Amino acid sequence: MYRTHTCGELRQAHINQTVTLSGWVQRTRDLGGMSFVDLRDRYGITQLAFNNETNADLYEQSRKLGREFVIQTTGKVVERYSKNLTIPTGEIEILVETITILSKSETPPFTIEDETDGGEELRLKYRYIDLRRNAARKHLEVRHKMAQEVRRYLDDLNFLEVETPVLIKSTPEGARDFVVPSRLHKGTFYALPQSPQVFKQLLMVSGFDRYFQIVKCFRDEDFRSDRQPEFTQIDCEMAFVEQEDILKTFEGLAKHLFKKLKDIDYTEPYPRMTFAEAMENYGNDRPDIRFEMKIKNITELTRGADFKVFDEAEFVGGICVEGAWEYTRKQLDALTEYVKRPQIGAKGLVYVRFGTDGSLKSSVDKFYNEEKLKTWAAAFGAKPGDLMLILSGTKKATLPQLSELRLEMGKQLGFRKGDTFAPLWVLDFPLLEWNEESHRYHAMHHPFTSPKIEDIGKMYTAPGEVRANAYDLVVNGSEVGGGSIRIFDSNLQKQMFDLLGFTPEEAEKQFGFLINAFRYGAPPHGGIALGFDRLVSIFNNTDSIRDVIAFPKNNGGRDIMIETPSEIAEDQLKELHLLIRN
Amino acid sequence: MYRTHTCGELRQAHINQTVTLSGWVQRTRDLGGMSFVDLRDRYGITQLAFNNETNADLYEQSRKLGREFVIQTTGKVVERYSKNLTIPTGEIEILVETITILSKSETPPFTIEDETDGGEELRLKYRYIDLRRNAARKHLEVRHKMAQEVRRYLDDLNFLEVETPVLIKSTPEGARDFVVPSRLHKGTFYALPQSPQVFKQLLMVSGFDRYFQIVKCFRDEDFRSDRQPEFTQIDCEMAFVEQEDILKTFEGLAKHLFKKLKDIDYTEPYPRMTFAEAMENYGNDRPDIRFEMKIKNITELTRGADFKVFDEAEFVGGICVEGAWEYTRKQLDALTEYVKRPQIGAKGLVYVRFGTDGSLKSSVDKFYNEEKLKTWAAAFGAKPGDLMLILSGTKKATLPQLSELRLEMGKQLGFRKGDTFAPLWVLDFPLLEWNEESHRYHAMHHPFTSPKIEDIGKMYTAPGEVRANAYDLVVNGSEVGGGSIRIFDSNLQKQMFDLLGFTPEEAEKQFGFLINAFRYGAPPHGGIALGFDRLVSIFNNTDSIRDVIAFPKNNGGRDIMIETPSEIAEDQLKELHLLIRN
Repeated sequence: MYRTHTCGELRQAHINQTVTLSGWVQRTRDLGGMSFVDLRDRYGITQLAFNNETNADLYEQSRKLGREFVIQTTGKVVERYSKNLTIPTGEIEILVETITILSKSETPPFTIEDETDGGEELRLKYRYIDLRRNAARKHLEVRHKMAQEVRRYLDDLNFLEVETPVLIKSTPEGARDFVVPSRLHKGTFYALPQSPQVFKQLLMVSGFDRYFQIVKCFRDEDFRSDRQPEFTQIDCEMAFVEQEDILKTFEGLAKHLFKKLKDIDYTEPYPRMTFAEAMENYGNDRPDIRFEMKIKNITELTRGADFKVFDEAEFVGGICVEGAWEYTRKQLDALTEYVKRPQIGAKGLVYVRFGTDGSLKSSVDKFYNEEKLKTWAAAFGAKPGDLMLILSGTKKATLPQLSELRLEMGKQLGFRKGDTFAPLWVLDFPLLEWNEESHRYHAMHHPFTSPKIEDIGKMYTAPGEVRANAYDLVVNGSEVGGGSIRIFDSNLQKQMFDLLGFTPEEAEKQFGFLINAFRYGAPPHGGIALGFDRLVSIFNNTDSIRDVIAFPKNNGGRDIMIETPSEIAEDQLKELHLLIRN
Repeated sequence: MYRTHTCGELRQAHINQTVTLSGWVQRTRDLGGMSFVDLRDRYGITQLAFNNETNADLYEQSRKLGREFVIQTTGKVVERYSKNLTIPTGEIEILVETITILSKSETPPFTIEDETDGGEELRLKYRYIDLRRNAARKHLEVRHKMAQEVRRYLDDLNFLEVETPVLIKSTPEGARDFVVPSRLHKGTFYALPQSPQVFKQLLMVSGFDRYFQIVKCFRDEDFRSDRQPEFTQIDCEMAFVEQEDILKTFEGLAKHLFKKLKDIDYTEPYPRMTFAEAMENYGNDRPDIRFEMKIKNITELTRGADFKVFDEAEFVGGICVEGAWEYTRKQLDALTEYVKRPQIGAKGLVYVRFGTDGSLKSSVDKFYNEEKLKTWAAAFGAKPGDLMLILSGTKKATLPQLSELRLEMGKQLGFRKGDTFAPLWVLDFPLLEWNEESHRYHAMHHPFTSPKIEDIGKMYTAPGEVRANAYDLVVNGSEVGGGSIRIFDSNLQKQMFDLLGFTPEEAEKQFGFLINAFRYGAPPHGGIALGFDRLVSIFNNTDSIRDVIAFPKNNGGRDIMIETPSEIAEDQLKELHLLIRN
């Protein structure tokens, strides 16, 4: 037996027991005559003590232990002279009787501490060492716990976990598929799922009633920061439900997770707002409502003052930053630079300072006198001490710019704390969005999303105005989940494919089985998919989903630890009937 | 709201309540004046009643409901006149007040009954309808429950569920990999994992201590009956353990599952036998021990009687079938044909009947007198009324033939009942097996399995005799899991790769990250992987793992419902830098 206890469990109650521990050498300290070793495992750290007087040989051995050596040790639990009350095992130590080195270690490429000296690439290459750090391991412990609690909650509600296939069929809609060449059927391919969407809908047709799965999904995207080619989804579907049933069920899930993992009780229902309201007030369909600072439209109040920029703008709007009137010129210049960055693309920034003495001073004083500015302040609900920041342009472009500005100000003012959570539902998304490139409508959610009954009439006359039974769960400015009530009528589904520019043949070829399935008695159904990686990263307050994935790919889609993707043997290519193009 | 109750929950206690149900029309019966509809959902069946006298209009509507229509109905719960006590809802029915057809159905391609008239190909094509059958759905309900219980058991023991990557690296060892071409890195490929083996070992190096995952794995095999290109594994690994720790932990898991899913209490430890014993006594490393009928070696007792077949055979052995002395000549001929089939390959079958009168009669009476046969009977432990069946040849060929014969006899005599479970451990597998084709040793389990310490000396002198710390969990003649204690020393691992014919460069290229990882303090570790599909199919007493997979591939590796694998667009091929070979 390698151990009688872990390195995290010994307490005063164990004093005088002889125990065996195994673990990694975190640190050694030689005080001359006495030496101490911190022995580490997943469960904690226990101090080992060696005394030159009582056992010179062991003492010598202890001095030769290097960082990250794996050892087994036996000894007696004794009370510590100088207790370390910052760790649970800090009241005892082990008076060592034997040690065995199970495995030596070369000097690790970076320190195994919460604040390590290793950069991200190095830590990814040696991810197996990086994961020894408490911080890294804790992220995955939270992930584990969340997965268990998700299943417990859904299992209690009679959801069935069903595994859907990974080797499926490529579809042209959505992002790019990863494909898998078939060896047995020359020239054909499987595709990896971007989501189990059609399978979960088929399960509803099968009468499974309530389905869930925590499942890997795949997207062959041009990698950007914080996207992974493989990611994990909490995928759910319910039959015989309306939107309200789904919101209730999954608000319950979110509350369950906050309670179990964060001990946060949400007694109130989550706020809800429509997509239109979210865009109007936050310039964003996933607003961070940890702070107010809503966008105000002051277009009308700016007209006719000969300020060309505003007069020519379709939209003038801004935010009121409470208590920020003392922002310096330098700070305001930095903000101007911030919104002018190409990623945001504003042309400039207008500000109005509301002095604590009641004075109003703006960067456009030439055009707007204090009386005029007062009407703005009123529109913003500003009070002395506040700062108003204003952008202008087309409405479509300006709202997202204001959203970025609002988020930046929220950050600068400390309103976006990782340990505060502000969930909400965004409802009534548009069914379709116009795509300038392909010059046709695309499904905003996916082609299976049902339009609102009252808007069906507009499907051909004003497709852009049709609202969908679609909803997103948003937390702290991140979309953590989205879903919809689905179409369950083959004719409406065909109409939808038509609207999306599928010929009947294409629709039949790609989704014939689903349209067919609807001909044999399909129940009304709907569902949701939550981004598991994102949810875990929000709970862990980490910036990147890479932190909550055991073996992530880097931003180029490569696993630099195992070095993949990589070349394969010519024989393998031949078997797969493939050639690499030149 | 689509329903107030499910179709499985109404009882006498609900009488007089007005309820709303939704579901599928399982069956309609028109008695003239009264009609009845069985409304079905996942939870059960509830009878709806329509009365021509009280509501002629509704009655007419009910007559137009077709099989598998989806309807919503409201009505009052009333006591039934003629109760059906075979179903939980059989004491009540719904006196219908309104019905709404939510979705019509064409006539389904086969009947939705436990005994359906649909063949397997048809049912696979319309799997979404097949899954409406109680029997089909129940298989997946057991699968769901088993998954939850596996996680519950392991979570309670501090195992952490960690998701390992699906897009990994192709390795030449083992079965063929499915590969995924990279679009961003021309000419390179990811591979889909045959198992998360190296990742779970890396997690042990990371100090994760106890890992598990219920995970999809992939093998590009030439399909045979009951193999799937994607399958699911309960994958586990533990650090600081010896073989005994693992056996105890996972015997505990198996017992937990039998208790929770089958209400079977196993109080005794599972039997254990070595690989050598299993081969000797059962001709098979996954013996079905629901019945005894062990193989006996009678080679020596057959020598020198001028029966050339036996004299020239390296091995003569057989089984004693209790109480089967009355097997007719026709039955014995059929058995002879059975063992002579090319899949089994025996040359012939010798039998000895032990009459209830004590007489011994054999098919080789010409060579062996009754005295001689008595020595055989003694060796078999046969008694009057038994039948001895004997095969001969090389030991290597004959033992598996006897195994097949033994299993067939067990089946014929009704010893292999699906509701009886006989688990056991098979231990001490050989480390290596000789491969005639490649003319070198292959790893019997995988290249990371550790040899027994006492056999390490033989690794170069007698590799075939080296035993591994490897073990299989066997139930009813199926291997449901296998694992090993791993090598955790880089030098021993290098030696192992050398033995398996890897050059140092190949080993470095394929598994360099693992060998490297072992240089930074690797703990002793080991694990097991259980075949989840197989385990569920044993618990469900089904013949094929296809029955317990929601959307299985057929024997050709095709999903005939969604029609995959299929061709992809030329643009897609181009983006992936691929051409199809001619």
